[in-house]
Amino acid sequence: MFPIKLSTILIPVLFCAILSASPVCSAQSSPISPVAEKVIIDTDIGDDIDDAFAVALALRSPELQILGITTTFGDTETRSKLLDRFLAEAGRPDIPVAAGVPSPPKSNFTQRRYAENNRYAKPSHPDAVAFLFEQIRRNPGQITLIAIGPLMNVGAAIDKDPATFRKLKRVVMMGGSIKRGYGDLGFGPPQPPQPEWNILNDIPSAQKLFAAEVPLYVMPLDATQLKLDEVKRAFLFSQGTALTDALTLLYHQWGQETPTLFDPMTIAFLVNPTLCPTQPTHIRVDEKGFSRPDPGPSNAPNPPNAQVCLDSNPDAFFRFYLNRVAAP
Amino acid sequence: MFPIKLSTILIPVLFCAILSASPVCSAQSSPISPVAEKVIIDTDIGDDIDDAFAVALALRSPELQILGITTTFGDTETRSKLLDRFLAEAGRPDIPVAAGVPSPPKSNFTQRRYAENNRYAKPSHPDAVAFLFEQIRRNPGQITLIAIGPLMNVGAAIDKDPATFRKLKRVVMMGGSIKRGYGDLGFGPPQPPQPEWNILNDIPSAQKLFAAEVPLYVMPLDATQLKLDEVKRAFLFSQGTALTDALTLLYHQWGQETPTLFDPMTIAFLVNPTLCPTQPTHIRVDEKGFSRPDPGPSNAPNPPNAQVCLDSNPDAFFRFYLNRVAAP
Amino acid sequence: MFPIKLSTILIPVLFCAILSASPVCSAQSSPISPVAEKVIIDTDIGDDIDDAFAVALALRSPELQILGITTTFGDTETRSKLLDRFLAEAGRPDIPVAAGVPSPPKSNFTQRRYAENNRYAKPSHPDAVAFLFEQIRRNPGQITLIAIGPLMNVGAAIDKDPATFRKLKRVVMMGGSIKRGYGDLGFGPPQPPQPEWNILNDIPSAQKLFAAEVPLYVMPLDATQLKLDEVKRAFLFSQGTALTDALTLLYHQWGQETPTLFDPMTIAFLVNPTLCPTQPTHIRVDEKGFSRPDPGPSNAPNPPNAQVCLDSNPDAFFRFYLNRVAAP
Amino acid sequence: MFPIKLSTILIPVLFCAILSASPVCSAQSSPISPVAEKVIIDTDIGDDIDDAFAVALALRSPELQILGITTTFGDTETRSKLLDRFLAEAGRPDIPVAAGVPSPPKSNFTQRRYAENNRYAKPSHPDAVAFLFEQIRRNPGQITLIAIGPLMNVGAAIDKDPATFRKLKRVVMMGGSIKRGYGDLGFGPPQPPQPEWNILNDIPSAQKLFAAEVPLYVMPLDATQLKLDEVKRAFLFSQGTALTDALTLLYHQWGQETPTLFDPMTIAFLVNPTLCPTQPTHIRVDEKGFSRPDPGPSNAPNPPNAQVCLDSNPDAFFRFYLNRVAAP
Repeated sequence: MFPIKLSTILIPVLFCAILSASPVCSAQSSPISPVAEKVIIDTDIGDDIDDAFAVALALRSPELQILGITTTFGDTETRSKLLDRFLAEAGRPDIPVAAGVPSPPKSNFTQRRYAENNRYAKPSHPDAVAFLFEQIRRNPGQITLIAIGPLMNVGAAIDKDPATFRKLKRVVMMGGSIKRGYGDLGFGPPQPPQPEWNILNDIPSAQKLFAAEVPLYVMPLDATQLKLDEVKRAFLFSQGTALTDALTLLYHQWGQETPTLFDPMTIAFLVNPTLCPTQPTHIRVDEKGFSRPDPGPSNAPNPPNAQVCLDSNPDAFFRFYLNRVAAP
Repeated sequence: MFPIKLSTILIPVLFCAILSASPVCSAQSSPISPVAEKVIIDTDIGDDIDDAFAVALALRSPELQILGITTTFGDTETRSKLLDRFLAEAGRPDIPVAAGVPSPPKSNFTQRRYAENNRYAKPSHPDAVAFLFEQIRRNPGQITLIAIGPLMNVGAAIDKDPATFRKLKRVVMMGGSIKRGYGDLGFGPPQPPQPEWNILNDIPSAQKLFAAEVPLYVMPLDATQLKLDEVKRAFLFSQGTALTDALTLLYHQWGQETPTLFDPMTIAFLVNPTLCPTQPTHIRVDEKGFSRPDPGPSNAPNPPNAQVCLDSNPDAFFRFYLNRVAAP
Repeated sequence: MFPIKLSTILIPVLFCAILSASPVCSAQSSPISPVAEKVIIDTDIGDDIDDAFAVALALRSPELQILGITTTFGDTETRSKLLDRFLAEAGRPDIPVAAGVPSPPKSNFTQRRYAENNRYAKPSHPDAVAFLFEQIRRNPGQITLIAIGPLMNVGAAIDKDPATFRKLKRVVMMGGSIKRGYGDLGFGPPQPPQPEWNILNDIPSAQKLFAAEVPLYVMPLDATQLKLDEVKRAFLFSQGTALTDALTLLYHQWGQETPTLFDPMTIAFLVNPTLCPTQPTHIRVDEKGFSRPDPGPSNAPNPPNAQVCLDSNPDAFFRFYLNRVAAP
Repeated sequence: MFPIKLSTILIPVLFCAILSASPVCSAQSSPISPVAEKVIIDTDIGDDIDDAFAVALALRSPELQILGITTTFGDTETRSKLLDRFLAEAGRPDIPVAAGVPSPPKSNFTQRRYAENNRYAKPSHPDAVAFLFEQIRRNPGQITLIAIGPLMNVGAAIDKDPATFRKLKRVVMMGGSIKRGYGDLGFGPPQPPQPEWNILNDIPSAQKLFAAEVPLYVMPLDATQLKLDEVKRAFLFSQGTALTDALTLLYHQWGQETPTLFDPMTIAFLVNPTLCPTQPTHIRVDEKGFSRPDPGPSNAPNPPNAQVCLDSNPDAFFRFYLNRVAAP
């Protein structure tokens, strides 16, 4: 049976989640609450822009204790340098950054200039999987891994030591496309499910994760096509805090108009699960990268292997997001 | 006691409201359903852009039978000509247009070129209040008046013949600012209530309406600051139907970037009341145009004089709106 | 020797070209001047947006007598229907439209909805090459062919009857990339020459045209990357004339932000050659679609085969363009 | 007679002005050329956005030696703090900043957050006029004063010590409206001259300057309505240098869409006078702030009191501007 533990829902922080606009709740993440959730974020920051927006939300969420951030997919060293600068400018140079094994570049590293024009870059970074295992061993059963990039590091960790990997408290991932594909915003012709980027770019690792027997929460395209439109950008990019300034600069290097905040929903869900209600599902990742519900035959139904969020309220998400990330 | 009749809620059309993307429900308004709600729209179309978007939604709602459209505030004759063209291009030249008494111009008639470059303009238009009374007498107790402009016509009608005015089934108005003012979108610093445009531009008429003892449904700023952002505009303005083409052209004459769809919520509420849930309230319009809840003294509480919607889900509204108005 | 005739420069219209903002000069194209230049426009209208903007300028240029418009590349029949509607809405349904031989679709017909949602579409269209030859025979030595699409029709005409083709007065084409490639606007890193779309999509026809011994004027990327920016769009799209309304609707179907007005420079050059000064050059189109200057060996230099415009003043172009196309 | 000295034209730098894209010429301002022009910039930076873009160009122009920057109009102390940060981030904290006498706020200090969220702000700033006089006495006849704000400091200096003020080499100002008013971009209906902001906000000081008998170069609205459109912004704001990052952040605090780069033309003119050709004119500033040419009676013509630029080529300006300011 799929081991959903009720304790993984952050009851204590619901109060703050609901009152997110209050000064207490939107305060910067230090000092960390004694009940703060220990998290590690695994990200391909630097290509699409939503990873930076996810890290920003985590930095503004006192309910989370960020043990470290690991980089995955492509030029992981430059992604780590980007994080060195981003974290330093946001006032959190203490957060460790570890780099995954690089892979051949298959994407457009849009934010390279920010990463390279960088007096905060560390000369080297520890290995991502080694860092992950070290943290798990120190905090067995306590760490939530937030996976918002292709799953190279996750797959490598499962390959290397599945038992230790299972000592994660849970994994929350942005990924998959269950009933809606890219561009399906609830108006216009429905878009059928498609292979989603984070899964498509490392299908075997995704398959391993869904079979890993770790509590898994999935935020697919169905619930994460959250558009940071012109009104929200004008608000956020004029705040003039160190954090919003960093986001503003990264946004312009990204070079497109409307960011889709796929990844930040993982953080929002952790802090306030009502922002993305999940349901137990058995998901099968096929060889083409589709992530289809697979209930199994009627007399031997598949047990759920994930809690999946199929819908969300963008307005509630953005009230939560913007009040936190824009806070002074 | 405030006479809310349950029958004013359009139970029969809820089915379509929920299934708004289905071909049956998004069909153009002809043929009109036998249970269609008889409505008259009173509008200051031509200044801000939301009136045109409200009329467009009404034209795409088979649950409504539009008996006519009346114009109010400022250059009512040019507003009527604008409607002549808009209705003709949308395939509904049969809908009567009546003009209110003109008043001194206090606003920017942004869409004047559309109105004047117009082979469909009628040489003259009947009087708005006369038209309203004629329709009420033909359909006593059956007409919903949708008021989406300053309340000159409404005030004149109440002055002239309050008994006939009370034979309206109800009034649904966009107006007021109860707990949130302009620019309060739920993020950033809260904006206190402000005098709202439709009330501010004819305060005495607004006071008469709130005292008129007609069932009154109010959609204030609190629930109607609905932003038609770049993603939604790109979708809507590329549909290429006669209706979306007309909206596209009016949008460009308006000349700003982001429309706020205040007015269309009145239509959406009529078709699907769950899009803007109301609660009974006693509203007092003061001499400066504020529209404050006034519960009265504790031992003689004021009976409610309106059903007021204080919050809405913009995403649900836009799924409803865009699926209807973009339909072929 | 390359037969540049001075008479091909429109001396009589220079007065208007310089004073383009005056009412006389910006008047609509009727009545046509007795000295008006006879032109045929060959276009792939419907994919990129600049063809429509070129036709619009031609319609507003009384110095030109448009004998007809022919369509080329891909779905030529739908392109012709698009023109049927565009010309009708602009008040010029009298201009003949002829369709080239269709070719396999290799582009994105962005403006298909405008073409198909169309009560002005003619059931069929004459053949483009036949139409061209008929017009040349009626007006030998008098017609300027304006080629603003891939050169299928041009190549077919040369193949079929090169002698008649040479009875064109001249060809003015948008095409080629001599010293600057796509995206080279004079700031940022220089972009080397690239295969340009109109040449790339039918290289053999382009080679035939450069060898056809017809006076040839070439407006390459170097002089035609003219950006219709937000300020100019706001001006143009709020004019509310039938012509600007049609451009507004097509712009939205195109679906991108900033049009590059490559093609309209051909029309501007015809009316006012100072807007794109040319110099005699020998251009060689190679098998990859590059269009390189090829001066030949020093003791046997290649005679020029084209007059090429290598630079332009965008501000002067847009003053000319916008004053004409926005005129009532 | 108006004392235009030919030597005020920067012959030595013309070479670089023409070749502005070459690495040598676009190099950062250190080391300063031995022939560099000594300048002081007087600015109301913080309201409109063009002042920051002017300072940025000066910082990237090795032909200029910036002796200091003085602030004028309204909250001069906060303007000075803004400059402290801007100069520090751009790598030039050595440039002195002096504050004019504050005046009652009449404008919107849009970039206040940037100025206040500032670890580089100096606790106080010397007096602007005292600083100006000290520099003039050290460098008599050598300093060009670049006036790009309302003329409070200029007027105060003339009042205090006109003889020393006359020891300026010259004044280059952005100001005035000779034949074209705001919004006249050469297309659309002409806009008649209007009172221009920098003159309107201190008319007596403007009158004093035009009578001060100092060589005066004027860049009015006629030549400075230079639109930084979406294409140019996308290029500039993605460069990721410290200077372009600072401009990006200020742009967003400004909060509008399209900057008009009025002020930078003063700097561009100094480096390359061909970018804004001037002609001798007698300008009269009237009591309403109009700045009209006043040739005087035919038999006693007014001698010119200024060199005025009435037209410019925006494309040439932006090639110059963007290649310099975007340089690494």
